[in-house]
Amino acid sequence: MEAALDELMAALRCLPGVGNKSARRMALHLLERDRAGARRLARALEVAAETIGHCSVCRTLTAAMTCSRCLDPDRDVGVICVVETPGDVLAIEAATDFRGQFHVLLGRLSPLDGIGPEELGLDRLEARLRDAPIRELILATNASVEGEVTAHYIAEMAARHGVRATRIAQGVPAGGELEYLDAGTLTHALSGRRDY
Amino acid sequence: MEAALDELMAALRCLPGVGNKSARRMALHLLERDRAGARRLARALEVAAETIGHCSVCRTLTAAMTCSRCLDPDRDVGVICVVETPGDVLAIEAATDFRGQFHVLLGRLSPLDGIGPEELGLDRLEARLRDAPIRELILATNASVEGEVTAHYIAEMAARHGVRATRIAQGVPAGGELEYLDAGTLTHALSGRRDY
Repeated sequence: MEAALDELMAALRCLPGVGNKSARRMALHLLERDRAGARRLARALEVAAETIGHCSVCRTLTAAMTCSRCLDPDRDVGVICVVETPGDVLAIEAATDFRGQFHVLLGRLSPLDGIGPEELGLDRLEARLRDAPIRELILATNASVEGEVTAHYIAEMAARHGVRATRIAQGVPAGGELEYLDAGTLTHALSGRRDY
Repeated sequence: MEAALDELMAALRCLPGVGNKSARRMALHLLERDRAGARRLARALEVAAETIGHCSVCRTLTAAMTCSRCLDPDRDVGVICVVETPGDVLAIEAATDFRGQFHVLLGRLSPLDGIGPEELGLDRLEARLRDAPIRELILATNASVEGEVTAHYIAEMAARHGVRATRIAQGVPAGGELEYLDAGTLTHALSGRRDY
């Protein structure tokens, strides 16, 4: 009935996890109670969509040519953590005290979909392994089949350059109850056991 | 670490029901997979925030002086449904075949918060009761204490103008199981029973 309102609700459904009812609630909330918030969000979207690209070194999202993490002199340049997405970078930064470098694959090896080493920026990662004093490559791809295949491929690359490759641990998640875990997780937890 | 990205995530938290993790997921989704959607949402927010105001007749949200519902010649001008919010209008339109007029209170009577008849546009509603051929006023305020008080106040106003006032039914919601209903709902359902 109301074009501008209908368009706002339709546009809000671009957001992941937002359906008809959430979009309606969000649109009405912004218009009835938070116009300043609506304008702020409009500006932030515009600026982010225009300016944010990928870091020339690690490929994470940044508005600069090279991201602030790659330029930070206080970070350990000898350790590179390889992750699939920029979201993984944020998650690791928020949850852990890791303060080394990153390489963001922006995907995972998937030959059938035409995603090979080139698409994952592995040429650039190989150049870093060759030219920089890297002591360790942490393979933090997802614990999925594609993630494992990708980790395996990158581990072989590290071996060719004499760089130690490590894989993040798989096992019981924090608070996990053994009774409800899947077989794969339990198998990993048991085979990966350590001295107590 | 990244100003434009941080600002986008902060701005997304203006949306109701969106916390840190959802904001991160939304921002990364838009930047990695749907830049066109981000730009579309920015424009829609801008346009809506600039153009949408309240209808001069029924007070719902509209970009025009008078909303398309109030101007629609095919709608019944003899019935006015009184609701608290523009969202209630959309909910009733979407769920029912009601095609009469509306009056949106944009709140409910709450003298302690300084919300009296004036703030709810009841002077304007009274003018419609006086000047237009209104047969029925449907009181569709919420089934809360304030909603009931507001409905009661408006019913007295309708009575002064000789207009029939009706209240939407209260009872068991569709699919509701008696065992789990609260006492108030069960009491209403029993006292409001009808011939079968």
